Amino acid sequence: MNIALLPGDGIGPEVIAQAVKVVKAVGKKFGHTIHFEEAPVGATAIDLTGDPYPDSTHDVCLRADAVLFGAIGDPKYDNDPKAKVRPEQGLLRMRQKLGLFANVRPTFTFPSLVHKSPLKLERVEGVDFVFFRELTGGVYFGEPRGRNEQGTKAFDTNVYSKEEITRLARMGFEAAQKRRKLLTCVDKANVMATSRLWRETVQELAPEYPDVKVEYEFVDAVAMRLIQWPKAYDVLITENLFGDILTDEASVISGSMGLMPSASLGTDNKLFEPIHGSYPQAAGKDIANPLATVLSAAMMFDYAFGLKVEAQAITDVVNKSLAEGVVTEDIAEGGKAYKTSEVGDWLS
Amino acid sequence: MNIALLPGDGIGPEVIAQAVKVVKAVGKKFGHTIHFEEAPVGATAIDLTGDPYPDSTHDVCLRADAVLFGAIGDPKYDNDPKAKVRPEQGLLRMRQKLGLFANVRPTFTFPSLVHKSPLKLERVEGVDFVFFRELTGGVYFGEPRGRNEQGTKAFDTNVYSKEEITRLARMGFEAAQKRRKLLTCVDKANVMATSRLWRETVQELAPEYPDVKVEYEFVDAVAMRLIQWPKAYDVLITENLFGDILTDEASVISGSMGLMPSASLGTDNKLFEPIHGSYPQAAGKDIANPLATVLSAAMMFDYAFGLKVEAQAITDVVNKSLAEGVVTEDIAEGGKAYKTSEVGDWLS
Ligand SMILES: CC(C)[C@H](C(=O)O)[C@@H](O)C(=O)O
Ligand SMILES: CC(C)[C@H](C(=O)O)[C@@H](O)C(=O)O
Repeated sequence: MNIALLPGDGIGPEVIAQAVKVVKAVGKKFGHTIHFEEAPVGATAIDLTGDPYPDSTHDVCLRADAVLFGAIGDPKYDNDPKAKVRPEQGLLRMRQKLGLFANVRPTFTFPSLVHKSPLKLERVEGVDFVFFRELTGGVYFGEPRGRNEQGTKAFDTNVYSKEEITRLARMGFEAAQKRRKLLTCVDKANVMATSRLWRETVQELAPEYPDVKVEYEFVDAVAMRLIQWPKAYDVLITENLFGDILTDEASVISGSMGLMPSASLGTDNKLFEPIHGSYPQAAGKDIANPLATVLSAAMMFDYAFGLKVEAQAITDVVNKSLAEGVVTEDIAEGGKAYKTSEVGDWLS
Repeated sequence: MNIALLPGDGIGPEVIAQAVKVVKAVGKKFGHTIHFEEAPVGATAIDLTGDPYPDSTHDVCLRADAVLFGAIGDPKYDNDPKAKVRPEQGLLRMRQKLGLFANVRPTFTFPSLVHKSPLKLERVEGVDFVFFRELTGGVYFGEPRGRNEQGTKAFDTNVYSKEEITRLARMGFEAAQKRRKLLTCVDKANVMATSRLWRETVQELAPEYPDVKVEYEFVDAVAMRLIQWPKAYDVLITENLFGDILTDEASVISGSMGLMPSASLGTDNKLFEPIHGSYPQAAGKDIANPLATVLSAAMMFDYAFGLKVEAQAITDVVNKSLAEGVVTEDIAEGGKAYKTSEVGDWLS
């Protein structure tokens, strides 16, 4: 197995380092030979090469069976709307060039952490849903985009083809079949032409999955109901921009934001990353929570290598670290706060 | 004073009827002569005329000093992506033809209802922020939009001019000056060209309002923080689509969704409406909560007529009805559930 490591910015390198320890330990235990190849991405790559996703990094990803990604983003780029090169461009180019069209973001609760949710316990206990966010289309890549000549008008284009919608929706249907058999298509079909194509396409596919109940909800309604009744959802499918907003909203409801993993899947490539950001304030302090990245590595064993036992072994040891309180300061709650590296050592 | 009444669909007529009682009572008490003119809108107008916003309704709005609006939407149109005429088109056309470019959506808590919030008490108690959502631009109206010839590809255009952003942002700045002096510009400047124009325009205006602190946050981050730390916000400004999603998300955090009013303001016209929808399941049952519409009438006295004392009189009587438990079943909590019409009678 060849794994590309893209630590990225901020706390990225620190959390990736812990995931590597765990992956190595699993490899040793189960007798897999695992090769790692590291490459720069994001602000780190801009500083090194001027490009947030250099060709050399792309080659490393293409060579690999799976990519383990940390985080990108540096505040020095955030408030400069005119900056020519931005770390996020690297992320978007990477998604597109690797064809990672489906971002899979589960939201579930850890009993020991659910009290940290901003929501009341009875609303959030036992929440278990998963978003399939389309990741290589929509307004993120649509053309034309830009300004008029005088610079006084700006425009973006949202565009979706039936094929793009179909391949994402099929993933959602298939996931629903293995879960509670409820699929929610999230769109804005009362306003947007792209959303009407989403709804129409999903309606056409639905008869092929007769065991799945399909619901259609507007994005604004879902933004409400995710907070009101998060337990009502099972599998949600949606376009890129709605997915960006809703998966971030969803990420805070379980109280375990620092633990949520994600997968970005394409036909030929697969990438795994924690959903949290680069958290620049914590960078270099050995205090960041590595569990989301470690759980992303578990997703990697499952989704990229089909190795469910190995994936479960990682999930189990993470649960054990939570039970025994071997955790970083963000979830230590008065108990001992372990360092990022100490948690990684303990897990492996 | 001439008030156009647009009851619309579902529970719209019932809640508007109660607001009319209250407005009449206030008019009588404070010596104002108030004329009402009613006109159809939404599914109701489609059934009557084939058009969800007939010219005759538009004329009634133009003649009026303010418009009091109920709700629109009928489920028979929701799951039919190919329906040629939809109630929402009437709403959008109305907003555009009346030039209602600023949707003002306050979120605040009622002490007697805050325990109904899905959020924990300590997160939500005392929340008090207001969204200024741009309402006549963006992807709602941008051209081109539609399908390719084969119907296999759909596209929408998001477009904003500096002028559109400026007039909305100025309202936000001015509101912030009268409040806690914090303005949050919500955009997706790391991805969208329109968002970069938003951020740039707000940055240019900021020096004119030196007493206002301006923060720039990405829409996905705000979707999270609204739930985590809603008290951190004061005034938020944003584009049409982001505002649609975030104001609906915001509407559930106070626990008083059925009570939240809104104003849609233009240069020449002003419209007031509850933020809740047409709630078709409750239509005709005399059980819908009329307080959001009554409070929208209070906003009307303030924003459209500059009559703050009258506005306060309405707010006071609503608070009294809450304190004395003269409320509909949705907030009766084991106490007596009054009918919609009974609440209206009591308030007036
Ligand atoms: C950094 C940004 C471009 C990115 C996105 O909007 O997709 C991020 O918010 C995410 O969700 O991974
Ligand atoms: C009904 C719909 C077109 C409308 C919108 O998206 O603006 C509604 O959600 C709202 O917020 O008033």
